[in-house]
Amino acid sequence: MSTSDYDVVAIGNAIVDIIGRCDDAYLARHGCAKGSMSLVDAARMAALYDGMGPATEISGGSAANTAVGVASFGGRAAFIGKVADDEFGRIFAHDIKASKVAFDAKPVAGGNPTSRSLILVTPDGERTMNTLLGISTELDDTALDPTKIERSKVVYLEGYLFDRPEAKRAFEKASALARKAGRQVALTLSDGFCVDRHRAEFLTLIRSGVDIVFANENEIKSLYETESFDDAARRISQDARLAVLTRSAKGSLVIDGENSTTIGIEPVAKVVDTTGAGDLYAAGFLYGFTQGLGHAKSGRLAAIAAAEIISHTGARPEVPLADLARKKGAL
Amino acid sequence: MSTSDYDVVAIGNAIVDIIGRCDDAYLARHGCAKGSMSLVDAARMAALYDGMGPATEISGGSAANTAVGVASFGGRAAFIGKVADDEFGRIFAHDIKASKVAFDAKPVAGGNPTSRSLILVTPDGERTMNTLLGISTELDDTALDPTKIERSKVVYLEGYLFDRPEAKRAFEKASALARKAGRQVALTLSDGFCVDRHRAEFLTLIRSGVDIVFANENEIKSLYETESFDDAARRISQDARLAVLTRSAKGSLVIDGENSTTIGIEPVAKVVDTTGAGDLYAAGFLYGFTQGLGHAKSGRLAAIAAAEIISHTGARPEVPLADLARKKGAL
Repeated sequence: MSTSDYDVVAIGNAIVDIIGRCDDAYLARHGCAKGSMSLVDAARMAALYDGMGPATEISGGSAANTAVGVASFGGRAAFIGKVADDEFGRIFAHDIKASKVAFDAKPVAGGNPTSRSLILVTPDGERTMNTLLGISTELDDTALDPTKIERSKVVYLEGYLFDRPEAKRAFEKASALARKAGRQVALTLSDGFCVDRHRAEFLTLIRSGVDIVFANENEIKSLYETESFDDAARRISQDARLAVLTRSAKGSLVIDGENSTTIGIEPVAKVVDTTGAGDLYAAGFLYGFTQGLGHAKSGRLAAIAAAEIISHTGARPEVPLADLARKKGAL
Repeated sequence: MSTSDYDVVAIGNAIVDIIGRCDDAYLARHGCAKGSMSLVDAARMAALYDGMGPATEISGGSAANTAVGVASFGGRAAFIGKVADDEFGRIFAHDIKASKVAFDAKPVAGGNPTSRSLILVTPDGERTMNTLLGISTELDDTALDPTKIERSKVVYLEGYLFDRPEAKRAFEKASALARKAGRQVALTLSDGFCVDRHRAEFLTLIRSGVDIVFANENEIKSLYETESFDDAARRISQDARLAVLTRSAKGSLVIDGENSTTIGIEPVAKVVDTTGAGDLYAAGFLYGFTQGLGHAKSGRLAAIAAAEIISHTGARPEVPLADLARKKGAL
């Protein structure tokens, strides 16, 4: 691997989360599929917001959360995404730069607003997301920074990008740039419904050139349309060079061809809000991977990061993950 | 007391808090007086924001926090303040209404932005606030809703209003309306520096017609320009009908003429962020007071509310205070 400027460059939607609490009946009444991410329009978002309790605004976005997690471990991270010239855009840009992630998108004035996601957290800590894409609908291949991609050990892409053809093309161009530069391409499947929408394309992509696939149990079972996790795990082992499969309280599995490594979970006193659990899991794993730490150690870092994030509201770490990992003897 | 629509109507600046962490050196480097509230302009706010770590946005505002606290205990609360027609205005309005506080200010378009306070929290949990008043500079007596004031048991006013002549006039008009309707007037001194700026006027006001004065140790000593808390307590007992003095970890004192009641603190596992401690103390006391619970019981509710708020980031309760108080046998 040639020298690099970054360990990970992440590409995704730049989102500010509006996180509030509700009960299961509220989700049912509003037709929200618990645990999912749905794209909504302004009217739907307003209706959901009006009826919900008081909220907290915290920067989010799946791939952005992962970039922040990598930086929190001490890794060199960059993020590529679009923000508008508005309050939410300023919040997003401040928070990611203050988290030591390189981000230099020029805010776009006068059009779509910065993306936001209304996140409803139920008493069990599960989050249900309703995202207004806004300016992120304009994320296309002109937003890419080829130098950042060519100079990063890993390009990390969120599956949510497949929901729009322009973003999908950006995704494909970023993968091609990375591969040409001898870099690794990592993909998170993002959401079970997202996999449902793009199953064939995800499979083609994984078989043709993704180095690391991140998925949770639901997503990987959806990808192979099977009810059996073991069946899905066996099939991804044939399709992807490296697959990292998370199973919530059951821990996770790193599948490297014929070899698989089981990773346990880190204890958490109380699951407050699962928003960002998968994103921070990916952050821990990618940090370890780019430092050459091996699957077991990388998985332990992943589990530590995920445990930190679900113990409080919001998808950005509240303590430096490097300190936390050192305290736990994992670094 | 005639029938009422509200237990408490609070009047103050409608603020969204931008809460981040910093160390003491950051405060020193930027010339921030630890524990204080300073009014800042846009350039100063930008400089402080740029240098600080990632932040969380949560609705705040001193009197607004108190109104939310009263409602969280099950009291009937209303809030009067100004918001602009912008993202922060929508956040503020949503959160206070979702907290069951009556709020019907029409957002003002095209001028000053909604007020925001950059709150720097040091590792000891102490908060240092830098407030850009924005649209709140337009809070004057035309913003008052006379019916709400006349139909509330208590009108609660934040001392911060004295920082501008128009708001001071609104304050005085609200007091006059309340007194004429046979209602009680409550005042919080807000901040030691604020008392410094308006000492003579605060004293005149307290002697002429405030029924309940809320102050912390620093503020009450500043009011009487004395180093002795006991001296300050003796003097406020002569000037105010009822004074509620908070002393952080030393608990608080309710002074009712010749009689005083000492209130202990509620245990807190870890002080995370003191933002809103005084506001929520006032909420608990005012809820008890308006329900006729007596000083000891009202003080206990105050201590419970303050303990809840300092155990997490932000000045709005994360659990219903009525439930918390019932669990602790205080309601």
